[in-house]
This record gives sequence, C-alpha cells and structure tokens, in this order.
Amino acid sequence: MKIGIVGGTGDIGQGLAHRLSHNHEIFIGSRDKEKACIVSECTVKTLYENGIEAKCKGATNQEAVDFGDVIVLSINYRHLKSTLDSLTGFENKIVITPINPISKSDCFYYDPPKEGSAALSLKELLPESTRIVSAFNNIAANRWKQLDTELDYSVAVCSDDAEAKNIVMGLVNEVSNLNAVDAGPLQMSSIVESITPLILNIAKYNEMKDVGVRFF
Amino acid sequence: MKIGIVGGTGDIGQGLAHRLSHNHEIFIGSRDKEKACIVSECTVKTLYENGIEAKCKGATNQEAVDFGDVIVLSINYRHLKSTLDSLTGFENKIVITPINPISKSDCFYYDPPKEGSAALSLKELLPESTRIVSAFNNIAANRWKQLDTELDYSVAVCSDDAEAKNIVMGLVNEVSNLNAVDAGPLQMSSIVESITPLILNIAKYNEMKDVGVRFF
Repeated sequence: MKIGIVGGTGDIGQGLAHRLSHNHEIFIGSRDKEKACIVSECTVKTLYENGIEAKCKGATNQEAVDFGDVIVLSINYRHLKSTLDSLTGFENKIVITPINPISKSDCFYYDPPKEGSAALSLKELLPESTRIVSAFNNIAANRWKQLDTELDYSVAVCSDDAEAKNIVMGLVNEVSNLNAVDAGPLQMSSIVESITPLILNIAKYNEMKDVGVRFF
Repeated sequence: MKIGIVGGTGDIGQGLAHRLSHNHEIFIGSRDKEKACIVSECTVKTLYENGIEAKCKGATNQEAVDFGDVIVLSINYRHLKSTLDSLTGFENKIVITPINPISKSDCFYYDPPKEGSAALSLKELLPESTRIVSAFNNIAANRWKQLDTELDYSVAVCSDDAEAKNIVMGLVNEVSNLNAVDAGPLQMSSIVESITPLILNIAKYNEMKDVGVRFF
C-alpha cells in the first residue's frame, strides 16, 4: 500500500514509518523536505541494520498527499486547519486522523471543536469524497518513539466508510502488537479522542508512564 | 466500613455485596425491602457455602442511606432524580456514582445532562457537604452478575474530595482483581462515563462480550 504521512517527522510519523515500511511504500512528508529526508534515511538505516529493506522516502507534505492511497495526518490539532489549507488532492483518499484536541489547566481536558471532534471537523476541511478514519489516537508519543519496544494496546477505529475502516484496521494490526477494534461510526471519535486527556491525567495522578488502553 | 447500596438488588449491587460483605457491613437497599432481603439472604447463603461469613442485610433505600458511611447509587440514570427526591440524609457522606447516561439509536452514545456528566449533576441533586466520587462506571452488568469470575479491569476514580477518593480507591482495590486509578477531578467523570457507550459499541461491532477496559 502507498502511505503518505503529513507531518511525518514527528513521533507517530517516525513510529509508523519504522513499523510499516518493510511492508508498504511510505512517503514521510514535512513542511521541511530536508528534515523529512533525514528522518527517512534514518529509518532506512535502522531497518537495514536489522536486515529489513525499508521502502521509505522523504517528501514535502504535498508530495506525501499526492503519493499516498492512505494519508496519515500526524499533526497537532492547533496546526490542522492551516496545514490542510496549504494542501490539495485529498479526493477519494483514505485519511487517517490520530489527532486529539487537548487543553491543559490543572489537568488535561478534552477541548473539541464545535463539530464534536477533530475527526468530525475534517468533514468540513476535506473534500466530500475523502474517506475519513480515526485511529491511533490513544498511543503515547513516547511509545511511538521507542522503536524497539512492542505496542500492546487496543486501537479504537471509527469511520462512516466501512471499507476504508476495514483497510485501516488491517494496517493497525500490522503495527507491532496493536489490536484494532471497530468502534463504530465517526461520531464515536469524540469519545476515543477524549480518552487521550484521560490517560494523560491517569499517568500524572498515578505516577505512571506512557499510559495506554486495552479493551477486552 | 458501613456501605449502603441504593438500588442494591441490581447487578452492581449484588456484585458489590457479594464481593465486599466479608470485609464490610452492607445494607442492600431497594424500594421493595422484601426483594432486598431475598437478595441479601442469597448473598449470605452463597458466601456461607464458601466458608465466608457475610455481613449483609436487606433494607429500604432510605435505611441504606441512613446506615452507610459510603453510599453506592446503583441505579439507572433515568431514575436518578426521582430516587434522590425520595431520599434524605446524604450530608457529609461519601456517595459513589457508577451511573452512565447512555442513549441508543443505531449505536450506543453518551447522553449527558447539561451539567456535563451524571456525577456532576449530583452536585445539584445532593447537599453541598456530600462527598461525590465516580467509580465502577465501565464494568459490564453481566460481569457483576458472574459472581464466581474475577474482574480484571481498571477502574478510573474521579472526585474533587481527595480523602473520599482515596477511601473509594481502597474499596475498589478490595473488589476482585479491580485496579483503581486516580483519574483526577470530578470534571473528568464525563470522559469515564462516556467510555461505557464506547465499549458497548466495541462489543457490538466486534462480536465481543462484556467488554471492559484496562489502563496500563
């Protein structure tokens, strides 16, 4: 599969590239193509040292969108609108959002836009034909970074497009020990996104690290 | 500890009575005292057959409130206001709410009151001195019923009263293999409550049974 990662030089982008590029062709996108190329070369080198041939390239965010059948929006919610305003070509593509709108005062709290969730706001920001799927929301950034540790979490996947959801669930299940669960329509993404501030608070109040979630 | 369970003849009430009455004195409350006595006798008998002496009694809901230092509101959100309107004496008591306001259309969804959550709405319905704690929200009713199986879940506990929260976390950790986690202030209860419709949907869409959650 051809996967383009917008904002691919961040933790989740690097993590996904590392964990999927033996099986899929990946464009790591960035506003700064040079940075993307460095991250890509680093991924290729690390996997090569482990005897794995990685199909991974550095690119601009636009090149990542143009390349991918599946696009991952690995960006902070604060930059979502401005990033998407600068990009085109999302028609008919599967777009994965791991984005969580979070604010912080004494504790972390869920701070969704008026549409109800970051995923639902994409319906306004992207063409109608874009196949929006929320996934990978509740995995701590640090866990993506730890490239040599397994991820033993559940990943709740939401979408109104059953076929796109199935494709993304298949991808999720290829990443480390992640276990995709169908969490229903895109409307449910607000609950899944809100679990991230909850687990950040659980980590904070219980002196735990990189808390994740499993449904069983 | 003296524990009064309002609506104690339901699944969670029976489950808690069964799993805590060897260590604590429990009044199982009900609108129908006769029913409460039957459930209590049944609990006592079951534990006696396992060599355990249960300190458990049937009572009216009001007797359960009067008896308990800790009150568990084991009632459906639909009946919360009418039940509390008929009861008095909550001053200074610890009140545990496992209540989740849920509606159903094609799937289950979170349907909180304007206060933000069932737990937050209790601030309006109970005296100011009541020490409100949300806990036990995400455990499937069927799991409470299966008295001979262990519960291996995390229980996110929320409260604005640190001492009450600690007491309830201690109680949670006494129930089967449940693991209490401090999830912060009562404001966070909306996220914890909303996990219940999410796991109901996950059960439905993935043909899983009695789905629970673990944070780790």
